[in-house]
Amino acid sequence: MINVQFAALPEKWDKYRNALHAAFEKFGLSVDLRQDHAPGDVGYVVYAPNSSLQDFTPYTRCKAVLNLWAGVETITGNATLTQPLCRMVDPGLTQGMVEWVTGHVLRYHLDIDHWIATQDGSWNPVCPPLARERNLTILGLGALGQACAESLLGFGFNVTGWSRRQKDVDGVTCLSGTDGLAQALSAAEILVLLLPDTAATTNIIDAEALARMPKGARIINPGRGPLIDDAALLAALDQGQIEHATLDVFRVEPLPKDNPYWVHPKVTVTPHIAAETREITAAEVIAENIRRGEAGEDFINLVDRAAGY
Amino acid sequence: MINVQFAALPEKWDKYRNALHAAFEKFGLSVDLRQDHAPGDVGYVVYAPNSSLQDFTPYTRCKAVLNLWAGVETITGNATLTQPLCRMVDPGLTQGMVEWVTGHVLRYHLDIDHWIATQDGSWNPVCPPLARERNLTILGLGALGQACAESLLGFGFNVTGWSRRQKDVDGVTCLSGTDGLAQALSAAEILVLLLPDTAATTNIIDAEALARMPKGARIINPGRGPLIDDAALLAALDQGQIEHATLDVFRVEPLPKDNPYWVHPKVTVTPHIAAETREITAAEVIAENIRRGEAGEDFINLVDRAAGY
Repeated sequence: MINVQFAALPEKWDKYRNALHAAFEKFGLSVDLRQDHAPGDVGYVVYAPNSSLQDFTPYTRCKAVLNLWAGVETITGNATLTQPLCRMVDPGLTQGMVEWVTGHVLRYHLDIDHWIATQDGSWNPVCPPLARERNLTILGLGALGQACAESLLGFGFNVTGWSRRQKDVDGVTCLSGTDGLAQALSAAEILVLLLPDTAATTNIIDAEALARMPKGARIINPGRGPLIDDAALLAALDQGQIEHATLDVFRVEPLPKDNPYWVHPKVTVTPHIAAETREITAAEVIAENIRRGEAGEDFINLVDRAAGY
Repeated sequence: MINVQFAALPEKWDKYRNALHAAFEKFGLSVDLRQDHAPGDVGYVVYAPNSSLQDFTPYTRCKAVLNLWAGVETITGNATLTQPLCRMVDPGLTQGMVEWVTGHVLRYHLDIDHWIATQDGSWNPVCPPLARERNLTILGLGALGQACAESLLGFGFNVTGWSRRQKDVDGVTCLSGTDGLAQALSAAEILVLLLPDTAATTNIIDAEALARMPKGARIINPGRGPLIDDAALLAALDQGQIEHATLDVFRVEPLPKDNPYWVHPKVTVTPHIAAETREITAAEVIAENIRRGEAGEDFINLVDRAAGY
């Protein structure tokens, strides 16, 4: 019997309990899943960073902490968490992100907002260009960035991708490093931000970065709030350098009612809905890592503590 | 030397001339392309239905009329046009339609209009369902309908397709006939209309059809205006049976300024921009048919005069 501690907000217990039991059974694992194991008896912790569990010191026999979230920026600084830490890379979350990013890229590509707003009886038939005539850039080529790139390549978009470490993704112009970032931004008629939140990515979209983008570019941020220097983005929108931004994530959430993004005519705020972990698919990722831990195999989605993701 | 008559509005001559010359050269065809051949000398007519050429009687040696448009409903009734008639199935037009239809399906799927409109500081994070939880129906499984189905299947949408003649398309629940239409409509959370305009399809979306759809369904019509009974659609929108419609084609175009669609809060009018023939790719389709005609091979995209498309 494997003792698994579930450490998340109480409503998540209701959401995940059945899905986890089903996944454990599917993977042939005999698990005692509880919220109240004695810490010293626990083999694995299924974890949400906003749970009350913050001190991992008494979890002396814990083989891994299995995060329910993709983002780990709030826990990599926890000095008591010395066990292997795995991020959630949920196929359901990835699919939701692909749908959301592709939908908003096509919205900008087809100028859908313009057509929604122009219902004044004027008839000016100008077809949009084809996707193959449009240059997009994705910052971040992890699981989410790569999946979005693949979807957008399917339409024929010219996709440039940038990542901290050089990647090689079929069909994508892959860039890295400081010079690569400048080049990636200069190609970004539409920019999608899917970087992790680390010391190296904070304010990566600052005034200088915005100035490198083509005039009239659009920005989609379903990644992390701190990637954008908010004052610089507001200035670039006011100057017309950036035509429009759709922002799903923010430094402070819920986004405060007096934040200028709410009323800016060139900004669409969405309340962190681009993608969420789906319990059925996420539970199977958790089960697979417990199976690996018991079999002595390497964990999947293991966090690199030095890089911060 | 093959004599090819170009019969379209003068601005189309400027648009197509170079593309056609390039395509003829690519296909190894020696062509004399003009707007003023003597009718009796013409081997092929490249044709737009709104050109001044309406009497084909003097084109006694013409092997085929090669339409620049996908729609042929305005010319199949021309009794003087006895030559083989080919529709345009342009890969560029098809790709444009795929982008437009996928963009608007994702707009509805993700409820993008709601988020654009809701910038009041309220924070209600409700993620959209995944595409695999959404049922779509496409009426019309010709080249355009099949290409759109393939794109939407890629996201995991449950796609039902209906056509006059039974088709078999991988991954699509294919239906036909009157009972099939009722079933297809009942599954249409989002309905895409890509049928040709024929006697059999006029007002196919009437009050009865609209009543069969799930309450709150959305309609996208990039096909042909007469497919919809306009009065019935307006009534269904007012009753809430249909939540929203995006209409790109109309019985009369430009859509008259006093048409109620313009001011209806649940309708987006776009000015026939979903897809257009792109000259480079269309010219190659024309050249391929001339090559086939000279080689004695069957034409592609030959119109079935009895069916009307």
